[in-house]
Amino acid sequence: MSEATRSIGWVGCGRMGTAMARRLVLAGNDVTVTNRTLAKTENLADLGAKVVERPRDLALCDIVFIMVSANDDLTEVISGPFGLLSDPEHAPGIIVDCSTVSSDTSQEVRTSCAQRGTAFLAAPVSGNPKVVAAGRLTLAVSGTVDAFQQVLPYFEQLGHGVTYVGDGEVARLVKICHNMMLGIVAQAMAEITVLAERGGIKRSDWLAFLNDSVMGSTFSRYKTPAFVNLDFKATFTPTLLRKDFDLGMAQAKSLSVPMPLSSLCTEIVKSAIGAGYIEEDFAVLLLEAARGAGLSLEAENIEIDDGLGQS
Amino acid sequence: MSEATRSIGWVGCGRMGTAMARRLVLAGNDVTVTNRTLAKTENLADLGAKVVERPRDLALCDIVFIMVSANDDLTEVISGPFGLLSDPEHAPGIIVDCSTVSSDTSQEVRTSCAQRGTAFLAAPVSGNPKVVAAGRLTLAVSGTVDAFQQVLPYFEQLGHGVTYVGDGEVARLVKICHNMMLGIVAQAMAEITVLAERGGIKRSDWLAFLNDSVMGSTFSRYKTPAFVNLDFKATFTPTLLRKDFDLGMAQAKSLSVPMPLSSLCTEIVKSAIGAGYIEEDFAVLLLEAARGAGLSLEAENIEIDDGLGQS
Amino acid sequence: MSEATRSIGWVGCGRMGTAMARRLVLAGNDVTVTNRTLAKTENLADLGAKVVERPRDLALCDIVFIMVSANDDLTEVISGPFGLLSDPEHAPGIIVDCSTVSSDTSQEVRTSCAQRGTAFLAAPVSGNPKVVAAGRLTLAVSGTVDAFQQVLPYFEQLGHGVTYVGDGEVARLVKICHNMMLGIVAQAMAEITVLAERGGIKRSDWLAFLNDSVMGSTFSRYKTPAFVNLDFKATFTPTLLRKDFDLGMAQAKSLSVPMPLSSLCTEIVKSAIGAGYIEEDFAVLLLEAARGAGLSLEAENIEIDDGLGQS
Amino acid sequence: MSEATRSIGWVGCGRMGTAMARRLVLAGNDVTVTNRTLAKTENLADLGAKVVERPRDLALCDIVFIMVSANDDLTEVISGPFGLLSDPEHAPGIIVDCSTVSSDTSQEVRTSCAQRGTAFLAAPVSGNPKVVAAGRLTLAVSGTVDAFQQVLPYFEQLGHGVTYVGDGEVARLVKICHNMMLGIVAQAMAEITVLAERGGIKRSDWLAFLNDSVMGSTFSRYKTPAFVNLDFKATFTPTLLRKDFDLGMAQAKSLSVPMPLSSLCTEIVKSAIGAGYIEEDFAVLLLEAARGAGLSLEAENIEIDDGLGQS
Repeated sequence: MSEATRSIGWVGCGRMGTAMARRLVLAGNDVTVTNRTLAKTENLADLGAKVVERPRDLALCDIVFIMVSANDDLTEVISGPFGLLSDPEHAPGIIVDCSTVSSDTSQEVRTSCAQRGTAFLAAPVSGNPKVVAAGRLTLAVSGTVDAFQQVLPYFEQLGHGVTYVGDGEVARLVKICHNMMLGIVAQAMAEITVLAERGGIKRSDWLAFLNDSVMGSTFSRYKTPAFVNLDFKATFTPTLLRKDFDLGMAQAKSLSVPMPLSSLCTEIVKSAIGAGYIEEDFAVLLLEAARGAGLSLEAENIEIDDGLGQS
Repeated sequence: MSEATRSIGWVGCGRMGTAMARRLVLAGNDVTVTNRTLAKTENLADLGAKVVERPRDLALCDIVFIMVSANDDLTEVISGPFGLLSDPEHAPGIIVDCSTVSSDTSQEVRTSCAQRGTAFLAAPVSGNPKVVAAGRLTLAVSGTVDAFQQVLPYFEQLGHGVTYVGDGEVARLVKICHNMMLGIVAQAMAEITVLAERGGIKRSDWLAFLNDSVMGSTFSRYKTPAFVNLDFKATFTPTLLRKDFDLGMAQAKSLSVPMPLSSLCTEIVKSAIGAGYIEEDFAVLLLEAARGAGLSLEAENIEIDDGLGQS
Repeated sequence: MSEATRSIGWVGCGRMGTAMARRLVLAGNDVTVTNRTLAKTENLADLGAKVVERPRDLALCDIVFIMVSANDDLTEVISGPFGLLSDPEHAPGIIVDCSTVSSDTSQEVRTSCAQRGTAFLAAPVSGNPKVVAAGRLTLAVSGTVDAFQQVLPYFEQLGHGVTYVGDGEVARLVKICHNMMLGIVAQAMAEITVLAERGGIKRSDWLAFLNDSVMGSTFSRYKTPAFVNLDFKATFTPTLLRKDFDLGMAQAKSLSVPMPLSSLCTEIVKSAIGAGYIEEDFAVLLLEAARGAGLSLEAENIEIDDGLGQS
Repeated sequence: MSEATRSIGWVGCGRMGTAMARRLVLAGNDVTVTNRTLAKTENLADLGAKVVERPRDLALCDIVFIMVSANDDLTEVISGPFGLLSDPEHAPGIIVDCSTVSSDTSQEVRTSCAQRGTAFLAAPVSGNPKVVAAGRLTLAVSGTVDAFQQVLPYFEQLGHGVTYVGDGEVARLVKICHNMMLGIVAQAMAEITVLAERGGIKRSDWLAFLNDSVMGSTFSRYKTPAFVNLDFKATFTPTLLRKDFDLGMAQAKSLSVPMPLSSLCTEIVKSAIGAGYIEEDFAVLLLEAARGAGLSLEAENIEIDDGLGQS
């Protein structure tokens, strides 16, 4: 197949899936989408995407991306009775899974794909729809080099950084590693921000300095409004973060890697959940840090740029 | 004094001091420098700086910057017999200290300056000469707003991010906060990188992904070569990092702020020093993490951009 | 069955099993023993125990105790072709398992026993043969109250403290809890002992004080010789301790209980293993603590009572 | 002086001081007491102690014990205008300080004593009046061997374990080490007890097992009623415990000893204080552990022996 004529399928039009597929549609590709609840495909249809009813209807696509919620969903959309592989005549050339699933499930569907001659790439993403819209999504991809090379032009449309990290399911571990990093940095920001405030420094001043410094990151910048203005509307909940830490610590156990900061952070996140922070953004780690310091925080109510202006 | 005619003094021409003063000289300012060992002023003299023998000889400067090693040095260059304030007739308009000193020492010299009508700004910096050369130095400044406004144009020549954080010595705390952040991120990178490697991922791949992601920072990028190629030539030693953690934990004690990650990281850094890592870069935290995992690391010997191309 | 005439079976004559069965034989009970390697039953036979070839040969016993190494062994001696339940005509009245097995395996064999009308008690023990010989073994037991009451007289011969902790497999958790306590106390002793020594206090003096104080325990006393004289012949290895911490942290995960000290201790034990301490006693935590302090320990070579004189 | 005729002085009749002096009075010694608030000496007077108004009035005593609250109090009762050394003609032969003071203060008063020919012993105690009454008080003593030998018979009346730990102020460090051990064991008990309860085990059952086991200590037994019945009337507050951890971590810093568990425990205690637990017993660590697990504890209301029946 030549790049010019490749047809793209997309399974899963939740918030993240829609934000991602939207980039492929706007880039002018031939994209056909589907979703369990078809109504959720409307936004993409309005932008020019074709819509089909079932994953099976994408069997003729060259490349099919998947963005679903959990292990069982992935198995269903690939190997289920109306799944991508359910048409005995046809199967997609390459299936790319961007969901967060276990390495075991990933391995199973990879095997099923292989039996049909379909290449499978694991390309789990982290981040949120605002990050996607800002063009800041990064992808770690594992599978065969050949399949990766073929999908690369589309990955580059999805985000700004794509890294091929090896065979099999290793991209799953890369994503977990990334999210543990994110959790530790968030907790570090929380406890250090409380120290700064107790020392007489406004949170907005300390974080402005941090963001300008060599430690500043897209993440530190986009969490700053929550820390300054105490707006904890969720982009990522403590419960989701804990799930990643649990997966990471399970790997640390089976690979016999001591991870003192990561394990401590796991317990701190667990404790925040036990204290009742379930639905809020995980930036509530700041509130728990303040509680331990006997500090009552006030929103500074300053307009802060989150650094995610769309690109 | 009008901005155009301001004369700048500089005390302290070690590696960091020279790298910083160099930027002011190259920007075309009227800069006069001095150093305990005069030979170290040669590089700056070659670029056009004037050289004097003693801090006292800078008493007529509008603004004098200081970059020395420790508490006693700062006291000496300001209040000593040949210090900036030792001329009974004249004293600099503003003294700006960029050194790492205790809040107590900072407070003492501030008082001495005030008695002579000299404004004093605390502007501690972190980073290393390469960061300075790359224009990535950031400064947190505390003191009076008026003095800050006057020095601002020069701060902006020194680096790319300057944040006024309040009165008195609070900039000292900001710097400590920054360096605790740096230590925690380094340890997180160390233990997570070992996990990734044990999971079959090349360090260079994992770190490339990290650096591209929302967690990537100037810091994570410039530490990557050390992590990948195991080059531990010091830019910042475990001993210096421990000093900042000790100062931070002392503040955490006096301000009653629980800092679980910071305190654990303090102990980990202490342990690396006890194990014999004194002169190396603090990136040796990677070696300690690998030891605990029973993992023997090999240099990947890949050319890696540290992201600090000069600007 | 009246207490006077109860016949006791014993499966498993390794070091711990022999030490325990020995107490029942010496107390004058009618004890029949078996072991995969029959030669290991000789010591007990010399004391008056009867020996049979296979667990199946104990099917007529009123109470059968089991002390084997792992999950599979327990399943084999109960449900295997020559197991305790393999005789279609007869099955023991009560089976008491003292091994360290998973809750899942425990639940499975409990079900198998129930189908044959045999009561099953989980009675995992910790400690070592010296502790058993000293009469200091403690037992946590779970299962039905009735079965517990019947076996109680024999439990009291085995050790000095028996606690009924509830239904089902909860005794397994009690043992894990106990061993996490043991690991934390050992690490606390390690790091605090290093502090004392660096402060100029002999290990033997500090530990003598500790043992006399309200914090002194049978455990702290019997670990003292290893800490003072650096004799690390294993009674319990870091690998075994790590297994208990892993089980405990898995429970902490599934029950959502934050355990900061326990998780940190898990990583410290993991790290000692990664550093190469596999076969030694877990008192080597002292060596790791000393390494981090840059301290070279010397054996004090003092005769120390371990407090385990036999009773 | 012959032992038979030694006169004993006692300064400080608070709760601990009274409990301790009481033992010396009841043992038939010639004891003279004083206290800033004289009314507090009444209990001891009723038992036969003589009362004087000021420490100075004890200048003729052979041995004077001191049990006061803080650094300044110790300095006052020794070197103040009406202190033990304020009589130019006479000074006690030996002064024994049982208070909790800094090593610096201890060193200062030791020097003052030496100038008057008075031997000074540091003999800090931990525990509470119930422990004293039960005869379970332990003492670590530092100073000269000769002075220690002279006071030994009285130390043995005060408690049941006396350890000479060396010259100078090292007994201060021993006490801090002991109390860090106590804090870590309390936190370990807290988090493990919450795990056991979430796993379906009654706190009273788990703790009964623990207390009977090799891990059981006088401490674990006397904390059990608080853990089971949630009675947090203070015997030792989080604030006092934090003071000891702060002193211990300061030593760990100056002696460069990494103490991961101790430092983490310091932060946990700090956090409990920040959360508002100021006046309660430090067994409230259990409440904080339960909060993190989302567990609401109920008192079991069982009568539990604290193991401190008087001896």
